Amino acid sequence: MTPLETVLAYYKAWTTHDFELAMQYIADDIVCHTPGGRLVGAEAFRGFMEPFSQILLDSAILGSFGDETTAMLMYGTRSRPVADAPGAELHTVRDGRITELRIIFDRLPFEQGRSEQ
Amino acid sequence: MTPLETVLAYYKAWTTHDFELAMQYIADDIVCHTPGGRLVGAEAFRGFMEPFSQILLDSAILGSFGDETTAMLMYGTRSRPVADAPGAELHTVRDGRITELRIIFDRLPFEQGRSEQ
Repeated sequence: MTPLETVLAYYKAWTTHDFELAMQYIADDIVCHTPGGRLVGAEAFRGFMEPFSQILLDSAILGSFGDETTAMLMYGTRSRPVADAPGAELHTVRDGRITELRIIFDRLPFEQGRSEQ
Repeated sequence: MTPLETVLAYYKAWTTHDFELAMQYIADDIVCHTPGGRLVGAEAFRGFMEPFSQILLDSAILGSFGDETTAMLMYGTRSRPVADAPGAELHTVRDGRITELRIIFDRLPFEQGRSEQ
């Protein structure tokens, strides 16, 4: 699999609520740069990403690119708290596993949703 | 110029405070999808993007890809209000001008900086 194929398989898994399959593409020592800070290790990553996958209603890829070591995705999401929240991800992939992931999204509407509850 | 070359020239211009040059890569009827909503036209785009270019201290590209019609960038920024604010952009380019641009970044630290003033 190319890095982009790995990342698209990961994306398909988490956006279709199969997080166990998604985790098979995640390296044990993944480093993930999130808007809230840096996470290290697969369990920390799962703690960040799995809750969002559970409230996801649907998602669509807006753009995807890759080369021999990295892949980049942009996608739209609709989730229970926020109707339209696009995300972008830059992945480093080694041996079919994602070793580094930078994810960008706007936390503001999620914070506003929380404070309105 | 390929779409990616156009987008990199635009990026270099706005991140080095040459916004007049940056605007030369922007189509008059650009549609820009920002975290705060959709903007139409070059002047609306300038009103959104130029103020950030003025408070930018430095920036570095994290990833860049392109094909015949589109290009995608991810970059880090350091600006006066926020020390570390990465951004991602997906561009559609026609005849050397950016006709559609989706930009993703986390507004939360900018809002927090504003409310602390």
